[in-house]
Amino acid sequence: MPKTEHWQWYVEQFSPTELHHHAIEETYFSGDTPFQHVAVVRSSTFGKMLILDGDTQSAEADERIYHETLVHPALAAVRERSEVLILGGGEGATLREALRCPDVKRCTMVDIDGSVVELARRYLPEWSDGSFDDSRARVIIDDALAFLDRDDGRYGAILSDLTEPREDSPSNPLFRDEVFRQIKDHLCEGGVYALQASTAGVHHMALHAKMARSLRPHYRYVRSFYTHVPAFDADWAFIACSDAVDVAALSEHAIAMYVGTLRGENYFYDAETHRRLFSLPLYLRRELAKEGDVF
Amino acid sequence: MPKTEHWQWYVEQFSPTELHHHAIEETYFSGDTPFQHVAVVRSSTFGKMLILDGDTQSAEADERIYHETLVHPALAAVRERSEVLILGGGEGATLREALRCPDVKRCTMVDIDGSVVELARRYLPEWSDGSFDDSRARVIIDDALAFLDRDDGRYGAILSDLTEPREDSPSNPLFRDEVFRQIKDHLCEGGVYALQASTAGVHHMALHAKMARSLRPHYRYVRSFYTHVPAFDADWAFIACSDAVDVAALSEHAIAMYVGTLRGENYFYDAETHRRLFSLPLYLRRELAKEGDVF
Amino acid sequence: MPKTEHWQWYVEQFSPTELHHHAIEETYFSGDTPFQHVAVVRSSTFGKMLILDGDTQSAEADERIYHETLVHPALAAVRERSEVLILGGGEGATLREALRCPDVKRCTMVDIDGSVVELARRYLPEWSDGSFDDSRARVIIDDALAFLDRDDGRYGAILSDLTEPREDSPSNPLFRDEVFRQIKDHLCEGGVYALQASTAGVHHMALHAKMARSLRPHYRYVRSFYTHVPAFDADWAFIACSDAVDVAALSEHAIAMYVGTLRGENYFYDAETHRRLFSLPLYLRRELAKEGDVF
Amino acid sequence: MPKTEHWQWYVEQFSPTELHHHAIEETYFSGDTPFQHVAVVRSSTFGKMLILDGDTQSAEADERIYHETLVHPALAAVRERSEVLILGGGEGATLREALRCPDVKRCTMVDIDGSVVELARRYLPEWSDGSFDDSRARVIIDDALAFLDRDDGRYGAILSDLTEPREDSPSNPLFRDEVFRQIKDHLCEGGVYALQASTAGVHHMALHAKMARSLRPHYRYVRSFYTHVPAFDADWAFIACSDAVDVAALSEHAIAMYVGTLRGENYFYDAETHRRLFSLPLYLRRELAKEGDVF
Repeated sequence: MPKTEHWQWYVEQFSPTELHHHAIEETYFSGDTPFQHVAVVRSSTFGKMLILDGDTQSAEADERIYHETLVHPALAAVRERSEVLILGGGEGATLREALRCPDVKRCTMVDIDGSVVELARRYLPEWSDGSFDDSRARVIIDDALAFLDRDDGRYGAILSDLTEPREDSPSNPLFRDEVFRQIKDHLCEGGVYALQASTAGVHHMALHAKMARSLRPHYRYVRSFYTHVPAFDADWAFIACSDAVDVAALSEHAIAMYVGTLRGENYFYDAETHRRLFSLPLYLRRELAKEGDVF
Repeated sequence: MPKTEHWQWYVEQFSPTELHHHAIEETYFSGDTPFQHVAVVRSSTFGKMLILDGDTQSAEADERIYHETLVHPALAAVRERSEVLILGGGEGATLREALRCPDVKRCTMVDIDGSVVELARRYLPEWSDGSFDDSRARVIIDDALAFLDRDDGRYGAILSDLTEPREDSPSNPLFRDEVFRQIKDHLCEGGVYALQASTAGVHHMALHAKMARSLRPHYRYVRSFYTHVPAFDADWAFIACSDAVDVAALSEHAIAMYVGTLRGENYFYDAETHRRLFSLPLYLRRELAKEGDVF
Repeated sequence: MPKTEHWQWYVEQFSPTELHHHAIEETYFSGDTPFQHVAVVRSSTFGKMLILDGDTQSAEADERIYHETLVHPALAAVRERSEVLILGGGEGATLREALRCPDVKRCTMVDIDGSVVELARRYLPEWSDGSFDDSRARVIIDDALAFLDRDDGRYGAILSDLTEPREDSPSNPLFRDEVFRQIKDHLCEGGVYALQASTAGVHHMALHAKMARSLRPHYRYVRSFYTHVPAFDADWAFIACSDAVDVAALSEHAIAMYVGTLRGENYFYDAETHRRLFSLPLYLRRELAKEGDVF
Repeated sequence: MPKTEHWQWYVEQFSPTELHHHAIEETYFSGDTPFQHVAVVRSSTFGKMLILDGDTQSAEADERIYHETLVHPALAAVRERSEVLILGGGEGATLREALRCPDVKRCTMVDIDGSVVELARRYLPEWSDGSFDDSRARVIIDDALAFLDRDDGRYGAILSDLTEPREDSPSNPLFRDEVFRQIKDHLCEGGVYALQASTAGVHHMALHAKMARSLRPHYRYVRSFYTHVPAFDADWAFIACSDAVDVAALSEHAIAMYVGTLRGENYFYDAETHRRLFSLPLYLRRELAKEGDVF
């Protein structure tokens, strides 16, 4: 009966001149929370996709690439893993990855949008994979800044899954010296702060470089790393900050030891992948070496 | 917060080389019935839209154009309006228009897909505007052919809102001599059979002409009429068949008398609109005059 | 070898939420003139298409509908057809239609963009069909206003094929009382001024109605007419103005007589089509009856 | 005057459900050669783009990523660089990169489609950057297989820039044991055969793995490497084959020495980038370790 199979499309607009069209096979949810527009759809290539304000947040087919990259280099690098803090991360996949590490005794996740957490539990259970019900998980619906203000905990790793500080972004106020200091005050000695940090693609590396420049005065080691995330159509970048450990220089042995303790199997990350993530191409190193403005 | 306002699109494919993209503001429903894929969405230009298998069925902004055209020329032309039969028409708008005529004592509507009727009542109440609850309405969920087989009623007007007999269409078996005869057997003397009859656009008038050719052996008067329906991106055609009355030649006076009896106000149809509908351009008359194959 | 047949598309944007995509089979020309961006492409459905600043101007498949409608109702209505003036009309198809009438002794066409005329002669010869070389044609590359200022001719019919006076349009300054008077001063007694006049679709009839309101103080008869032009995806409207003749009320006999004199065959227009064009649907008559602002 | 800036789009179809739309700012050329459809356009994000049969072949913004990756790991690894052979590579950028190495005394390039070479010289001079006129360049328009049949040269590096052996591809016949042997027969002792080898993305690594499996019986070292090429929307893979040298294990020192001899500056490649290219993520190593069919 169908004349045409694909009539509903998710169009991600990277710029007014670059659009990516994904045929939607099913729309599980589409609506507004107090903070953003949320949709959960399924495409044939990427499986279930979470879309916030028209931007792909994560997709079934490759979310493990993104989430293993955000979590494991940092956790592999720290000694004290009992307390982990996640800023953002509403889907629960960052939480899932952190809790795969048995050394983690408590993982606190602070997300401003409780609706996204609820929608993710309902429509994307594969993302959290039961971790919301793990007794080690502490999920707090609050503004990250407000939480940091009143919380007096210390964490071996702080993982920031907040959106990047574009000018119109709600994360923009989170990217300033005062907050950097506040985050650092919540790190244990020897701790690592890892954050998703915009893109490192040939056209769009300036914001990432500015983020790195802004963090350098605060930490001895500020290391960029990145991987292509197909569902994002982008080379997605991260930064690992620490006064104690150079995450980029982690030994194969140390990584292998850490990975060996994880429950279940990794999809993407291990010592060789770590080397890939932290080996940056020439053009990106040049960009990172430039001087320029900071947040 | 939104980077881009329009990320979800309904793409209607007229052919592999012609696509119409409508930004979707909201998806009310999207799912499969046993018969077809049904979606109800809202676009900024056309308002709520009903989409069956990827084809626009009707839109808030101009459904009155389509439904007034299907119903009123036929009803204006017949004397005996007490019994009206609608084949298809699940949205309830054909029913609504028929019941605006106080002469109609009972309007029977037979649609195969009860889910569409339910979805239309829930999401498109403006279409039926209460007519499903009108005591004169008789709604039967059944195959049109099965109904005609067992029904022994006679109707002053039979209005067919079935999809056109494209090769892959479920309506295809309804378009053959035997069914034409069965429909005619259900017409009162002096009755009119009016049907939506594909498009009359410069590129796509062959199917309409074939439908007209197929009906001519059965009726004395077989009149084509059409109007552009913006939400369809098409010049939509209809055929009015009768042994007693030439609907194309209806007098202004007769039409004005009929329209005067209707409850509420028309949006599109009156005597002048009737003249427009039945005054066909040269290229279409040439096409209709051609000989060719029949169903 | 081809993986996909259609990789190049012409996307006409009707609004940010309504796009029509036409697959391009061939690009004949694409470049800027001093006045606008011009492209000539071929689509499978509409054949060759002339595109100015991203808007479809005319298409091989249905340009006769538009051009016969602009030219013939006006010419049929006037007695004195020896001198005709066309404002705009660079493709040469308005000229072609006017010159099909043997009563026309001279047809003056004034278009501001000589490049469009040249490109149309080269890539769209079917549009002008030799009329640029007709000894009765006088083609002047100039601003319409400047021409009217210095010209002291009188014309039985003035046909305006200028773009509608949208706010950002170069035709906007042409739509004001002073210019209306100037045009009228160039009409012979009994002459008709016909102009393309934006759209009459359910969503976009306000500009047309404003144009009609603005012209009414200047002429005894100001008649709207329109037809769906598929390549425009729109119900395209026109206005015929005259102090002497009500073009809407032209008799079948008069039209048939006029059409009979034309060289070659019409595709769209004759007496029945004329009746269609000038029989307006209820919603449009209501819009035209409203009071409102003028140019 | 422009209502909308972007009306012409290049739509790359990755599958019927995944499309990437690039607004075209200018079309330099669009036409058929005896072998394929060729277009040269400019997009705002990627600059000039070469499109063969609707697939992006290379783009101004990132072609250096692709071409440095194809050429330099292989050339860095071989001792005997005086003779280099390129199969395909019509744009001239592979040639350009090879000739940047002063050790190269002659670089032979064999491409079947002379029109692409001519179009690239005319519209994409930045790609070849004068290398077609380098006295060390020998450009032969011929089928790669026919050339190998009659040529008795020996090359330190053979670089294959042919399209991947998809079922419908003209390169498919080039991917079989007999041809593998023929290519190897043209390698100097200690030589390296490097080829572009489809994609290594999460969804599309099977063809790459099959290519690697097919080559393993022929060489002691068969190493996969890849990089994301933004204009391709893909993780693009390559294979380096040699009996003498494990390209993946090349020392930092050796790479730095080689890079130091090149004329001009690299954009992408150096020792750290080499480490990135050859450090494969876990999922890809798992795929490459699978058994399966071969060509």
